[in-house]
Amino acid sequence: MFALDSRLQQDTLTIGDFPLCRLLLSNDANYPWFILVPRRDDISELFQLDVADQQQLWQETTALAELLKDLFDADKMNVATLGNVVSQMHMHVIVRKRDDAAWPAPVWGKHPARPYSAEQVATIRERLRLVLTEHFTFLEG
Amino acid sequence: MFALDSRLQQDTLTIGDFPLCRLLLSNDANYPWFILVPRRDDISELFQLDVADQQQLWQETTALAELLKDLFDADKMNVATLGNVVSQMHMHVIVRKRDDAAWPAPVWGKHPARPYSAEQVATIRERLRLVLTEHFTFLEG
Repeated sequence: MFALDSRLQQDTLTIGDFPLCRLLLSNDANYPWFILVPRRDDISELFQLDVADQQQLWQETTALAELLKDLFDADKMNVATLGNVVSQMHMHVIVRKRDDAAWPAPVWGKHPARPYSAEQVATIRERLRLVLTEHFTFLEG
Repeated sequence: MFALDSRLQQDTLTIGDFPLCRLLLSNDANYPWFILVPRRDDISELFQLDVADQQQLWQETTALAELLKDLFDADKMNVATLGNVVSQMHMHVIVRKRDDAAWPAPVWGKHPARPYSAEQVATIRERLRLVLTEHFTFLEG
């Protein structure tokens, strides 16, 4: 039974599930900032996943990055797994623009989160529905 | 013909080559901070690599992270491709410890780089020679 870390739960909105990962939206309107969490227990490092899961994580990460780059017209995608604070393995996939609040610095710790309005989240969800048409199940967060 | 970005060249030391990537050591003794650069031209995003190269990059990244975690007794490995400043695609693989200079923050922009002495670099190179025994060619930087 998959349990999401309480800090991730608190700071994000649930979008849905890829075959391996839950897709979360960081509740920070400064950037379109998504997080993939493999639905596996007790994993904090990439290499703790079995090889099939590693390949699936990579595939979901890369596909998501490509899709978000087009959808949000990114200047650069940032992809990272850090986990210094939240040990549950999670992969950041962040849309960066040259005029965003932190550019060119990484986003972490740069600005306080600006929570989304319900309307903003609904809009993002609708946009994602147009492109996440295969191998993805939307969940109500 | 592979050409390393001038900023990467300036800020790192060359360790050697995996089948796909050049392995660099960031010239910053604050952290054991390594960088993988696929030897391919004009790539800035993961999904611009062909599928075989993507799999190879993932495999080299994951294997390197696992090996460095043991070699340097990391508390956490940080793996990231950002590229907001240097557009040539590169993957950071960074050994993090709870007592390092930036913990638990990400390393970027946190502290000025502390260049290694020649002896320190020689020691790291020797330690890497013990574990990078397959599919790796050491180069003199």
